[in-house]
Amino acid sequence: MKFSCQGLELADAVLKTVKAAAVRTTNPILECVKMVAEDDKLTLTCTDLELTITKVIRADVRVPGVAVIPAKFFADFASKISSETIEFNLRDKTLDVTYGDNNAYFQCQDASEFPEPKTLDQPEYVEVRSDNFKELVTKASVAVAQDDSRPMLRGILLEVTNGELRGVALDGVRMALIKKPTISQSAEFGLVVSARCLIEIVRLLPDSDQPIKICTQKNHLQITLGDSILMTRLMGMQSDYVSYRQILPKDFTTTINVNRRHILDTIERAGLLSRVDRNFVVKFDINGKDMVISSESELGNITEHLQTTHAGADLKIEFNGRLYTDALRVITDEFVQIRYGSAVHPCVIVPQEGEEYLYLVLPMHKI
Amino acid sequence: MKFSCQGLELADAVLKTVKAAAVRTTNPILECVKMVAEDDKLTLTCTDLELTITKVIRADVRVPGVAVIPAKFFADFASKISSETIEFNLRDKTLDVTYGDNNAYFQCQDASEFPEPKTLDQPEYVEVRSDNFKELVTKASVAVAQDDSRPMLRGILLEVTNGELRGVALDGVRMALIKKPTISQSAEFGLVVSARCLIEIVRLLPDSDQPIKICTQKNHLQITLGDSILMTRLMGMQSDYVSYRQILPKDFTTTINVNRRHILDTIERAGLLSRVDRNFVVKFDINGKDMVISSESELGNITEHLQTTHAGADLKIEFNGRLYTDALRVITDEFVQIRYGSAVHPCVIVPQEGEEYLYLVLPMHKI
Repeated sequence: MKFSCQGLELADAVLKTVKAAAVRTTNPILECVKMVAEDDKLTLTCTDLELTITKVIRADVRVPGVAVIPAKFFADFASKISSETIEFNLRDKTLDVTYGDNNAYFQCQDASEFPEPKTLDQPEYVEVRSDNFKELVTKASVAVAQDDSRPMLRGILLEVTNGELRGVALDGVRMALIKKPTISQSAEFGLVVSARCLIEIVRLLPDSDQPIKICTQKNHLQITLGDSILMTRLMGMQSDYVSYRQILPKDFTTTINVNRRHILDTIERAGLLSRVDRNFVVKFDINGKDMVISSESELGNITEHLQTTHAGADLKIEFNGRLYTDALRVITDEFVQIRYGSAVHPCVIVPQEGEEYLYLVLPMHKI
Repeated sequence: MKFSCQGLELADAVLKTVKAAAVRTTNPILECVKMVAEDDKLTLTCTDLELTITKVIRADVRVPGVAVIPAKFFADFASKISSETIEFNLRDKTLDVTYGDNNAYFQCQDASEFPEPKTLDQPEYVEVRSDNFKELVTKASVAVAQDDSRPMLRGILLEVTNGELRGVALDGVRMALIKKPTISQSAEFGLVVSARCLIEIVRLLPDSDQPIKICTQKNHLQITLGDSILMTRLMGMQSDYVSYRQILPKDFTTTINVNRRHILDTIERAGLLSRVDRNFVVKFDINGKDMVISSESELGNITEHLQTTHAGADLKIEFNGRLYTDALRVITDEFVQIRYGSAVHPCVIVPQEGEEYLYLVLPMHKI
């Protein structure tokens, strides 16, 4: 193997692929990056078997070949090189790197031991905007379960149907349902993917309207953006997940429209007090046109009055304030609508217009 | 106690004083902020007995008085209030807070239990520029000992003499000596202050040429900037510290001038390899006009050539690369001068002109 490439392009690519490399594992090959040089391209791949990232950059390849070296170390090294051109030359098990007047020699691992990523041939896929997919994952992930009691709830359900991509997460006391339009669609699917991997994946996607391709095959989800391929194992199919449609409440008795920032700040202040008792209980008293939010603990108590537009019956209800603030922090709308059933039924936070997102929150039950 | 003050001023002041409040202590009063309202001023004080921070803001005081409430909670609360004016009213042991249409009531602690900070009457003091003092602490702190084997070396020696403030730190394999001019000076002293407290203190000082007053009395160091008072216990006097003047080497056989950024990058790259073996050994080969920096480990090896201006004898010497990079990272000069004695004598890193700083580094001894 003999090739040269641009220092900045290499540093950028290796810093992105290294995110999928394993950290502190008993299998050191999973801590490595695989470099494949052929056809004027250098392909970099890292995998911890759960998440696989592949990135391709331009290279001037004189002798094609494969080398496997420690990924974290190589990422640190590449990001500290300011040289324009870096030359690589593989001799036996040593990779010779020349940059400017300088030389480095790295010991290579056995390339045949590197787990071969299963590249999918993408027969059927869904295209969505990169920024829309990022937003969907970010907004859904606040409702993902944080404990391992039901492992499937550590995932996000991705459902493609009727020109729409849906992301669903729930943890027993709340649910998030986010909808984004697809650009084109030759497949319909419903599958569950680890939220941790999806969050890692969307960090690598650009915040632009560039389209990404999503496809699934052989127990994997594959996301393609230009020359980058991001792949992760499925946790299960839609049938393994909770039937979320049955949970959606249909009847509401009280509806308010409220400035998102104002209600978020108010619940956060009230939460400061209830945090002390670790129960985060925040009381809502919806009464006429006024909404009174209060909380108390051994430290003292807080009572705040919030301007809302209000329709329907008066209502007194108690919530875990965190379930509200988690959702209200990732929403970007200036105003939101909150619909309540009764003091023991779930409420939903939705946009004032459209139905791009829905957060369902269960109230605290009085004993 | 009854007063009102501006929300933003209060939030800023309480966020700064809370840095001195204790975290997780067996004495809850140390986790509190003491508020004293009198003479159109509100004085906020926090202390963990080691570091004390006092800040004064304007207030419209109708009834003077004292209240003590949990500091971290109050800082979070104040920073989340957007109201312009906040009203405080102490009734019995309850502090009533009114902001806009909203109310909060906080339970107060017993004010008599709050440890009274010993305010010093500042008979003799030294004035230095705030930015100079910040720089002195930042640049000296890289050489402070990280382990507790000799507690005094966890401090920085502050020495005032002849219109100059000196900061000295050393840990057995390196030393930092930083010098800054004083603006005015009515005292001379040499004392040792906890580096942790000094680093916390300089975070609160502005990066401007505003003068700060430094004085010492009754086992404390006090720093005054406008209405803020920062106070910390002394670890000892100059006589308790190492006689650093005796360590300074006087004879050098080899001197190089080198671009700071270039040598830093080179040693960092070389350090990536030697980091694997946890010894951080980096070899310097100063030879003619060329300086060759190299390192090796089981991962491979690196050899880099560095342009320098060189005077004196050729030299081969080995260092712990970290001792170099720690110093070179906080220096801001474009070029530095490095002076070597022999392969077993310490080297010093100094400016090309002047003597504002001196970093001494011991070489690795070959067995």
